[in-house]
Amino acid sequence: MYQQMSFKELVKVLGLGAVAVVLGVEWLDWLTRRLRVSRGPLKEVLFFPSPHVCVEHLFTRLRRFPCACPLPHGIETSFSRLLEHLLSARTSLDLCVFSFSHMELSRGILLLHKQGVIVRVITDRDYMTITGSQIGTLRKAGICVRHEMSTAVHMHHKFALVDGKKLITGSLNWTLTAVQSNKENVMITEEPALVQPYQQEFQRLWEASDPTNHKPQTKLKPSFVISD
Amino acid sequence: MYQQMSFKELVKVLGLGAVAVVLGVEWLDWLTRRLRVSRGPLKEVLFFPSPHVCVEHLFTRLRRFPCACPLPHGIETSFSRLLEHLLSARTSLDLCVFSFSHMELSRGILLLHKQGVIVRVITDRDYMTITGSQIGTLRKAGICVRHEMSTAVHMHHKFALVDGKKLITGSLNWTLTAVQSNKENVMITEEPALVQPYQQEFQRLWEASDPTNHKPQTKLKPSFVISD
Repeated sequence: MYQQMSFKELVKVLGLGAVAVVLGVEWLDWLTRRLRVSRGPLKEVLFFPSPHVCVEHLFTRLRRFPCACPLPHGIETSFSRLLEHLLSARTSLDLCVFSFSHMELSRGILLLHKQGVIVRVITDRDYMTITGSQIGTLRKAGICVRHEMSTAVHMHHKFALVDGKKLITGSLNWTLTAVQSNKENVMITEEPALVQPYQQEFQRLWEASDPTNHKPQTKLKPSFVISD
Repeated sequence: MYQQMSFKELVKVLGLGAVAVVLGVEWLDWLTRRLRVSRGPLKEVLFFPSPHVCVEHLFTRLRRFPCACPLPHGIETSFSRLLEHLLSARTSLDLCVFSFSHMELSRGILLLHKQGVIVRVITDRDYMTITGSQIGTLRKAGICVRHEMSTAVHMHHKFALVDGKKLITGSLNWTLTAVQSNKENVMITEEPALVQPYQQEFQRLWEASDPTNHKPQTKLKPSFVISD
């Protein structure tokens, strides 16, 4: 009788245990889904101007000794967040920017290019050769850059696509004045409904600005003063 | 016996019916939530340039006779969508824009102001008095406009908040060149995680540009050529 009860109890315990495990797994799954739904894809908003701080650690993650530059260290700013998102690229970076003269953002792109990330840049025709523009530096490094073909209009976008799934967009041109002085905004999102249209538009503009589809035109304008 | 069975059956049918109704309601509720989650809040992306079409019907919804202007009619464009979102304001419009010279967008804001919508505008100090700027027109109509106080930096945002819950943001200045010629983007969303930071930033800039908090400075620069 004792053995029989004990066996019954064992069956009960095992049965209840199995039910508890199944319910627990179901509950965890539900909880994970709930949390994912409530958080959703990445959505981040940055406002500028951003204070000038050291961002050396973002370029050299394994640096053994701390940076000795005189700038403030260990401070997260809108600019450091922007740079972090840019440097998170692992496979591709599609950049569509009106004016690009910021040296640290340029350094970031050169680093990605060196790491094997496929970088494509579209910029404005007039602004690509202005004093301080980083477009020439990117081209010299072997990065493929195209520009708006028409002389009558501006390619005024300021967006980037990281690995085809993270969108960085806003009012901010990639210049030092925009980052450190102006009132600007940048939004970073992985929401597919927002990312996909920008990805399609980049591809459309990339093909439209393919120089092999256009007849040679007059020379680009000589350098002039940077304006955002 | 027949009566008793019949009663039992009635109870069974009623019970099963109640269960079916409860399950049906639960299922409908689940389905609605699923659909809402998959669609989520409004997310729309517009690209420019936008073809020049008639948008008269957006200003005068109850117009009895069709517009007789020579522009194409009945065509939805990026600009008509932008204007529709602007005109959807019922209580408030907070606009933060670097350069504003587009007459139809200005007409839209004047209409909202006339309808009792509370309009607040923040703009750039230099660009508010350039030739073609609509800022003077808005001010003359009694709309409250503030501008960046510093002469050294630009208020370079281009965003609007409709009824405090719909964000319109992007690269597009509110000018005719931007709308009809340039490569530009505008995103419209009601995603709270994106709308709220812009609402807070607007309020911060609104208070920071309150003229009563600042000493009088030198006169504004005279008018000069529009640039986006």
